[in-house]
Amino acid sequence: MLPSALVPPAFDPGSVWLVGAGPGDPGLLTLHALHALEQAEIILHDALVSEEILSLGAHAVLEVAGKRAGGKRTPQLRINQRLITLARQGRRVVRLKGGDPLIFGRGGEEAQALAAAGIPFRIVPGISAGIGGTAAAGIPITHRGLARDVTFATGHDCRGDVPDLGRAALADVLVLYMAGRHLGPIAKRLIDLGRHPGDAVALIEDATRPEQTVRITTLAEAVDQPASVSPLLIVIGPVVSLRDHLLAWQQIAPMTVNHDRQQTRIAG
Amino acid sequence: MLPSALVPPAFDPGSVWLVGAGPGDPGLLTLHALHALEQAEIILHDALVSEEILSLGAHAVLEVAGKRAGGKRTPQLRINQRLITLARQGRRVVRLKGGDPLIFGRGGEEAQALAAAGIPFRIVPGISAGIGGTAAAGIPITHRGLARDVTFATGHDCRGDVPDLGRAALADVLVLYMAGRHLGPIAKRLIDLGRHPGDAVALIEDATRPEQTVRITTLAEAVDQPASVSPLLIVIGPVVSLRDHLLAWQQIAPMTVNHDRQQTRIAG
Repeated sequence: MLPSALVPPAFDPGSVWLVGAGPGDPGLLTLHALHALEQAEIILHDALVSEEILSLGAHAVLEVAGKRAGGKRTPQLRINQRLITLARQGRRVVRLKGGDPLIFGRGGEEAQALAAAGIPFRIVPGISAGIGGTAAAGIPITHRGLARDVTFATGHDCRGDVPDLGRAALADVLVLYMAGRHLGPIAKRLIDLGRHPGDAVALIEDATRPEQTVRITTLAEAVDQPASVSPLLIVIGPVVSLRDHLLAWQQIAPMTVNHDRQQTRIAG
Repeated sequence: MLPSALVPPAFDPGSVWLVGAGPGDPGLLTLHALHALEQAEIILHDALVSEEILSLGAHAVLEVAGKRAGGKRTPQLRINQRLITLARQGRRVVRLKGGDPLIFGRGGEEAQALAAAGIPFRIVPGISAGIGGTAAAGIPITHRGLARDVTFATGHDCRGDVPDLGRAALADVLVLYMAGRHLGPIAKRLIDLGRHPGDAVALIEDATRPEQTVRITTLAEAVDQPASVSPLLIVIGPVVSLRDHLLAWQQIAPMTVNHDRQQTRIAG
């Protein structure tokens, strides 16, 4: 339950809320997201969303859909159709995604499909890994005198291959999402596009979770690093070095969720 | 109070939490941010943070600092020193900023100062206007087939002048913060740097607040638009046109806060 002073907007039956779950730490959920989970009758979630966060959907049926669902991916058109079907049944539907629904989350496509079908929807922004994950790693992605702009890009193109990265390559700070699979080729491409081989690189895994790891390297060294299957966030730019100044005094313990729940689960 | 199932990390006396308040809608506060406001003994806040959000700091003394504080700006070094002084007095200190503390929020400088002084601190990410404000305007800032990357930049350089924008100008999607003052010159510069004059532009004011306004124009037309003193978020790119498809079915009513509080206020 939200504090009584807070009056949330109505989550009507027959509507869909596209909700960002943030990078992992349940404390990075927004108040809208908590309200949505508490009110939801069904939660269609990505496989990357943690059990801890799902447990906040105390009254909801859980259904997995999207990336890495048991090794296979639910096609986007099928997810869109499922959201429409559930809403037309008069349910309160939450579509829950890691990070933010509109930052490489395909929430825009889902919103388009819902609007085209005449289904009321709400977009509940989430803390994107590029913001929350970098902060927990002690890296301010903008910093006066070091970084005037920051670019977010994906670590794979829409066919799953090494992305083009043309114009983005020389951004003051470049944050690449889900970039583990192509780490070496991406580093090589950035150097070929004119980025300095000595540029500092941070490789962040399991950002904001208790098992978070951060490795610091350089672009030149990253060329030869092995690919990683886990979701890897890459930060490239001079701001990476600020971490050394912050690390000893920065607190990053996540919020925890202490109750279990019995949920009905449906395979995606 | 947070729901009892949620166990927040300790907010120790003598520490500082650098907290993002999001773009305006109190529902976009994170659970960490709500906890921080509830526990804070003193809240040093930007003038842009709403009374509604400040009212959640029920036990805290409020002190204004930073941008637009009664027309003047508190120097950053003075803010840093104030945070250190308050923490050394053993207080639980919240430094509350609009949006996210590390996206053009100078939270990195404050974190550096705290670390150098040996003060424990936490960075609590917020929903940045470039993410939450654009979502509320019905603009997905990434979208498969339209935008592979998104760049966040400021609408003024560190002297307050028209920013350079060199490499960032041609990003798939460019989001400019606090860009009202230089709207015309920025539009002209982007065209000079090679951006198409017909590119769609969204001008978003008071994002996520009840008084939110969104104007759609083009770069060429924006050249002649008057400057604005209010915080203006500019989005440039093909994704702006998606708004037309979403608008009729998108719900954006904010969360409201229904209690008043009597707070002690200190001029910045």
